[in-house]
Amino acid sequence: MRRGTNLLAVGGFNQSVILDRIRRSPEGLSRVEIAAVTGLSAQTVSNVSRRLLDSGMVREGEKRNVGPGKPRTLLHLDPTGMYAIGVHLDPTVVTYVLLDLSGNVVADHRAPTPTGLPVAGGPPAAATPDEVIAAMAEQVEAILDRSAVPRERVLGVGIAAPGPVDAARGIVLNPPLLEGWMRVPLREALAEATGLPVLLEKDVTAAAVAEIWTTDDRSRLRDNFAFFYYGTGIGMGLALDREVLRGASDNAGDIGHIRVAATGPLCSCGRHGCIGELVVPHYLVDLAITAGLMPAPYEPLGPGAIDSLFSTLAGAAAAGSPAAIAILEDTARHIAGAVVTITNLLDIDQVVFGGPFWRRIAALALPVIAELVNGDPALISPHPIHLSDSTIGEDVAAIGAGCLVLDHTLSPRPSTLLISE
Amino acid sequence: MRRGTNLLAVGGFNQSVILDRIRRSPEGLSRVEIAAVTGLSAQTVSNVSRRLLDSGMVREGEKRNVGPGKPRTLLHLDPTGMYAIGVHLDPTVVTYVLLDLSGNVVADHRAPTPTGLPVAGGPPAAATPDEVIAAMAEQVEAILDRSAVPRERVLGVGIAAPGPVDAARGIVLNPPLLEGWMRVPLREALAEATGLPVLLEKDVTAAAVAEIWTTDDRSRLRDNFAFFYYGTGIGMGLALDREVLRGASDNAGDIGHIRVAATGPLCSCGRHGCIGELVVPHYLVDLAITAGLMPAPYEPLGPGAIDSLFSTLAGAAAAGSPAAIAILEDTARHIAGAVVTITNLLDIDQVVFGGPFWRRIAALALPVIAELVNGDPALISPHPIHLSDSTIGEDVAAIGAGCLVLDHTLSPRPSTLLISE
Repeated sequence: MRRGTNLLAVGGFNQSVILDRIRRSPEGLSRVEIAAVTGLSAQTVSNVSRRLLDSGMVREGEKRNVGPGKPRTLLHLDPTGMYAIGVHLDPTVVTYVLLDLSGNVVADHRAPTPTGLPVAGGPPAAATPDEVIAAMAEQVEAILDRSAVPRERVLGVGIAAPGPVDAARGIVLNPPLLEGWMRVPLREALAEATGLPVLLEKDVTAAAVAEIWTTDDRSRLRDNFAFFYYGTGIGMGLALDREVLRGASDNAGDIGHIRVAATGPLCSCGRHGCIGELVVPHYLVDLAITAGLMPAPYEPLGPGAIDSLFSTLAGAAAAGSPAAIAILEDTARHIAGAVVTITNLLDIDQVVFGGPFWRRIAALALPVIAELVNGDPALISPHPIHLSDSTIGEDVAAIGAGCLVLDHTLSPRPSTLLISE
Repeated sequence: MRRGTNLLAVGGFNQSVILDRIRRSPEGLSRVEIAAVTGLSAQTVSNVSRRLLDSGMVREGEKRNVGPGKPRTLLHLDPTGMYAIGVHLDPTVVTYVLLDLSGNVVADHRAPTPTGLPVAGGPPAAATPDEVIAAMAEQVEAILDRSAVPRERVLGVGIAAPGPVDAARGIVLNPPLLEGWMRVPLREALAEATGLPVLLEKDVTAAAVAEIWTTDDRSRLRDNFAFFYYGTGIGMGLALDREVLRGASDNAGDIGHIRVAATGPLCSCGRHGCIGELVVPHYLVDLAITAGLMPAPYEPLGPGAIDSLFSTLAGAAAAGSPAAIAILEDTARHIAGAVVTITNLLDIDQVVFGGPFWRRIAALALPVIAELVNGDPALISPHPIHLSDSTIGEDVAAIGAGCLVLDHTLSPRPSTLLISE
């Protein structure tokens, strides 16, 4: 509610309830049926349906005989009635998706996160936030142009960014991996640059939103789950009773300083054994170089080089290299340790794995993690922990950011039903 | 909703809404005012008020002029109209409280957890669960007798027990510190032994409930907080947006295997440095004996001896013993490490400390923990973490268990408002 709701509220609670009902009834619903299942009056259903038809979000379909009286016209969601844009700002890559009202990806695009001028003897410097935001606005425009979606059919832009954020004010605070970003008012700046309403969400939270939105099947996605995000950095999106957990300042999900070993590289916190140091792609590439799996580079590794060398490491493991396999198995062991800590604390029964770097190591790492977690004597849970790959793929955070925009339009929220003070 | 609600439901949602309104208006509320603030019809308010008056939970007070028309009779909560009993089963002590409808403690009682026959050369064996439950039922009867509260005015018994539990079935599974307890159907057994409805809750969750129920002041208790429970074992009750977090199987809050050091006693999980080994009273007493602060005992320490020697250690630290202070400062450092891990994951901004062993070390430990947490470079939160003592005292879990029973009667739940499927 604090991420810019009023910008995006296109109707009241009753409209959300009706739209939600229609969305969940692919076979169509008559106004009489809507009144019956929602408990709303025929007059309210009629008025709201009219508004939804006018907005293009709902269309009338065939007539059907439902009970006595004349045949009833069925209402259907019109997925092309409205759209949402999702953007994911990662230190390495910016991902753009265009979602229709059903949450389907209509178009997507990825571009390297803009860089500034190269620094002598090192990787390119980071671009300024202003440059990044300007590039984002251009890409948003381009994806709308290519898809021929008129701007007035766009509900808004959801942007997923690395934390910590001040989501209430739409500010990216000081993400450790986004060089030069310090208290950047990303939400307002992108709204100004695009002319569209913007919602800001922490990346790992957006990823959890995407899972909830795209997976109705409870046997594949439990009501309580964590999303282990494996990107340039790592984090954990949390969902409890199918609601994402944001925390007091919308910064929930930081797991980098969970200690999973007695030794390891020195962390920024002054300790050794923090998972945020031990499992990130950059460190794995360092280990692979040390193990002689790939030649040592001539200059410090930039994001592009790490991405490419990480693929080399994953390929070597898949091809049976014992040294590469050992690196990934250690990684799996460290991740398993953090999973046990988190499931013990929150009593969740599923962890979903995804993010830009995950798929390359999934086949090797996931079974190892699953075995270690469920066999760990430290696991308190009386039920097994179900571990699974995200079905969404690398665009998960961008899709989640777009879903947040749809969610504000489509989902009835019990909080709005509370008796007001 | 899964902890025996139907046993305790004494009215529908509208009744809860009205009762909640009356409870929050110490100055009284007229039926007209209730209709205005709840949106319920005058007829519904009149019917429900009649039921509440008949039940004794509400009484009529003075008349007041509110707007035009004749003076209106004000309705007040009658705290003596109904009661709830809270029981906390700790491996060392069982605590009983009798709460009135306002949540005030009318009577309380503590008794050592029953023990069985002594084992040669060791501490007394644990009593069987049946013996413990029979003793509980006797004490419940005794506290009602002493308070002259008629049984028909008792809404039920809430019992807080160490986890893991199967709260849906009311079963205590296999708490590591409750010897001989293996899948004990505590809820049904206590209901049968007392003839009263019973709710079962994990102890740390009950403690968090007690904080929420007894502290309305948001400057003292934030909406998002953790309750660090320091008893024979340790655990963490969690509250997010002022709702306790229970998890998929109501076992949230296990923190014993969070690693806070590279070394430490060997844990049951096979690792070293788990906080559940490093900060529990038993270990601190062992350290104090090793440091020569107290003589080594002739036989293994039973719960009573640990409790008493822990007091000796705390007293020595308060009197300035450097060795005792060092033990408690190490303890504070380990607790601070776990607090940072948890606040990073959940983005909570307050941790409340309590439980049977806490008060004895609070004066020394709390300022150290506060300084270490807020000065830790691993702390991600953009806001300071507020650390505080529980204001409730050692009965916190028992009071929370009793509050749960009241909560089922008094609190309107948004979930019951959701459009039904």
